[in-house]
Amino acid sequence: MTIQTAIAALTSFLGDHLTLSKSDLEAHGASETHFAPAPPDAVAYPRDTNEVSQIVKTCADHDCPVIPYGAGTALEGHTLAIRGGVTIDMSRMNAVLAVNSDDMDVVVQPGLTREALNTELRATGLFFPVDPGANASLGGMASTRASGTTAVRYGTMRDNVLALEVVLADGRIIRTGSRARKSSAGYDLTALFVGAEGTLGVITELTLRLQGQPEAVSSAICSFDAIGDAVNAVIATIQIGIPMARIEFIDAQTTRACNAFSNADMPEVPHLMVEFHGSDAGVAEQATRFGEIVEEMGGTGFKWSSLAEERTALWDMRHKAYYACLALRKGAVALVTDVCVPISKLAEAVEDSRADIAASGLDGPILGHVGDGNYHAILLLEPGNAAEMEVAKALSNRMVERALAMGGTATGEHGIGMGKLDYMRDEHGDAWGLMGDIKQALDAKNILNPAKVVQVN
Amino acid sequence: MTIQTAIAALTSFLGDHLTLSKSDLEAHGASETHFAPAPPDAVAYPRDTNEVSQIVKTCADHDCPVIPYGAGTALEGHTLAIRGGVTIDMSRMNAVLAVNSDDMDVVVQPGLTREALNTELRATGLFFPVDPGANASLGGMASTRASGTTAVRYGTMRDNVLALEVVLADGRIIRTGSRARKSSAGYDLTALFVGAEGTLGVITELTLRLQGQPEAVSSAICSFDAIGDAVNAVIATIQIGIPMARIEFIDAQTTRACNAFSNADMPEVPHLMVEFHGSDAGVAEQATRFGEIVEEMGGTGFKWSSLAEERTALWDMRHKAYYACLALRKGAVALVTDVCVPISKLAEAVEDSRADIAASGLDGPILGHVGDGNYHAILLLEPGNAAEMEVAKALSNRMVERALAMGGTATGEHGIGMGKLDYMRDEHGDAWGLMGDIKQALDAKNILNPAKVVQVN
Repeated sequence: MTIQTAIAALTSFLGDHLTLSKSDLEAHGASETHFAPAPPDAVAYPRDTNEVSQIVKTCADHDCPVIPYGAGTALEGHTLAIRGGVTIDMSRMNAVLAVNSDDMDVVVQPGLTREALNTELRATGLFFPVDPGANASLGGMASTRASGTTAVRYGTMRDNVLALEVVLADGRIIRTGSRARKSSAGYDLTALFVGAEGTLGVITELTLRLQGQPEAVSSAICSFDAIGDAVNAVIATIQIGIPMARIEFIDAQTTRACNAFSNADMPEVPHLMVEFHGSDAGVAEQATRFGEIVEEMGGTGFKWSSLAEERTALWDMRHKAYYACLALRKGAVALVTDVCVPISKLAEAVEDSRADIAASGLDGPILGHVGDGNYHAILLLEPGNAAEMEVAKALSNRMVERALAMGGTATGEHGIGMGKLDYMRDEHGDAWGLMGDIKQALDAKNILNPAKVVQVN
Repeated sequence: MTIQTAIAALTSFLGDHLTLSKSDLEAHGASETHFAPAPPDAVAYPRDTNEVSQIVKTCADHDCPVIPYGAGTALEGHTLAIRGGVTIDMSRMNAVLAVNSDDMDVVVQPGLTREALNTELRATGLFFPVDPGANASLGGMASTRASGTTAVRYGTMRDNVLALEVVLADGRIIRTGSRARKSSAGYDLTALFVGAEGTLGVITELTLRLQGQPEAVSSAICSFDAIGDAVNAVIATIQIGIPMARIEFIDAQTTRACNAFSNADMPEVPHLMVEFHGSDAGVAEQATRFGEIVEEMGGTGFKWSSLAEERTALWDMRHKAYYACLALRKGAVALVTDVCVPISKLAEAVEDSRADIAASGLDGPILGHVGDGNYHAILLLEPGNAAEMEVAKALSNRMVERALAMGGTATGEHGIGMGKLDYMRDEHGDAWGLMGDIKQALDAKNILNPAKVVQVN
């Protein structure tokens, strides 16, 4: 029983929905970031849950690894087939199965992307709020417990997945959760599969919470001389209960990059970018009160707007910040860090990272979801420069160590994949072993995305 | 190796922190509701996590059941020692260990009650929002994934527990989660222990999210001729994004009970009671807009107030509704149901239940957390009347079946305990077996609150 016998068995029922073409294998074995390619031996394109079940069962029978694959936007090499095997590409399972407007939920297949979902929802007055930047698949977003700019208001995938259908390692199909808004009926299996990166089961259907389109939206921007003042403004804003829909931090270097890339003229100091959702009067009040806090904390240049075009320009600039940073160094590739700390430690963490990057000789603009305490350094590297990669990894390593010492986490939203496995023991101690016990109980043959998240024999 | 040898071993190191007194055993073997008493063989009162660890390890060595116990307010007999063993009473582990104001979190021991926590927090401007009515312990609330009137705004225990310390079945002490607001670092073990009812580990410390005290609060009440109109008003309110802090439904019979008990004069029809949190202008706007929706949906008698005394009177009446209902029948005991359905099905579910109760000959006022789709019928029974108990159980059974058929859950917030185990297979199908696999992996000897939540050999 081998990968090859598994592929032979799969071919018999998948026909041309299984491909061995070199270009397909390479595409599925590449990573968005700096990881070495690791192509699978075959790529399956199932059309429904039963087909996924058959594929997994067949692979289980042949001890063949199975790697679920969404849109391929993972940043930590989650979908690399490092032990070979069969990648299950979900892109053909991308339907919206039911929109329940009164209940503000939607049932979708995992290959659907978040942008496609929101396009589909446009006429309903509802939207799906989780926005990791990339146009990721919803199954992938659930599997990495993704979040992004709106988590401060609407939560992460943890908070927005109500129910799942999952194919287990032996091919059984189960359902977790329900369309009820809450339940105390036993173990929270939905939460267990969200963030499991495909190591415990293959997600084949998701029920997601939706939000009403806000009647009005206002946005604001302001600058600070010191990161600490910006963070204190955010803490004060959260404490008095102003419900920010987004609050993003960009440091001086990111500001410089955005100026150049988006033809803006912000002073080259740290900035906060904020968005408020609510009624007309509500968003005006929120923006005004936020402005008062900014002034108290020594911020300057505060302006707010409820004009759509100004808001769009602001968030367009923010969404392009990653590319703006990349453009600071011609031809650069990036190693993107992703720590998250208690917000009271954020200024210290960012300043430490800032100083550490400066001393390293690398460029590394910093930006983050400041309401969550989550920030990224975009470390700019010459492709193939091993010495620089070494320096970048050491920087990332120190950022993680500092975050853990501050009571934080090695990854706020990108996940473990290939990049963060080495920190799992440091972060979780004996609880990491418990994760291994759960993996063992659910996937004794270790065929589901093996060598990710946990360590098993 | 028996329960008796376990107790002998425990006595050697717990001294008088272990009791075999009959009154203590009886108190810990009683339930708040209708379940038959099932006292443990001993009650331990640990003072710290290491003592809990030693107790569990000793019990594991002797194959002796261990039942974690908070304030004893569970409604489904969760803490009954139905296989005997040692109850671990957490009441002496009731300290607030750290208040992190800037991060809006708090670290507490599990025996602390939610009211004691909020008293402790009074000077900080922060509060812990989850409010199940009873003054439950926070460890118990986490273990049953409790919620209550404020879940529509602030979520359930699922959303408000950031991190845990847990003693596992072999006595090992682990930590799950962190003080970071979000994380993608592996399996969500925190969510696994929340709602596990002490069957996977003993919670010995919790890190909880806090909220800022709202600057202003307004409340409102209104009446409807039909339940469906009330529910439609709630759906419209949620969809346009008015952030209700509470929205409670009471049916005509509950209204009558409240009138009598709290000396009020509401018309005897269904009512909604609502609360808004925000700025002065915000809560006024929210209440006004809610009033407009109520009018559109045919509601009457709408009045709102931001006066503290009027609000207090309203919620005092609501909090006493259970006792008001009990007082409808002299000397009655109650069987309290707890289903939760998608909100679009709520009117139908409540009306079906209403008709079913009416046909049964029993009294059963209905009230619920309408924003979540969660409602309770308080079935009033003569103590010791087996025939009535039979009727009540059959009613509850049909309510659960109906809720499951509507895509809901057998328990919105009370948990499984002794009362809902029979519905687990219906609700979860094969996923219930998966819960058993997890139990097996984490507690192979089945010593932790045995015969609850899952079925293992």
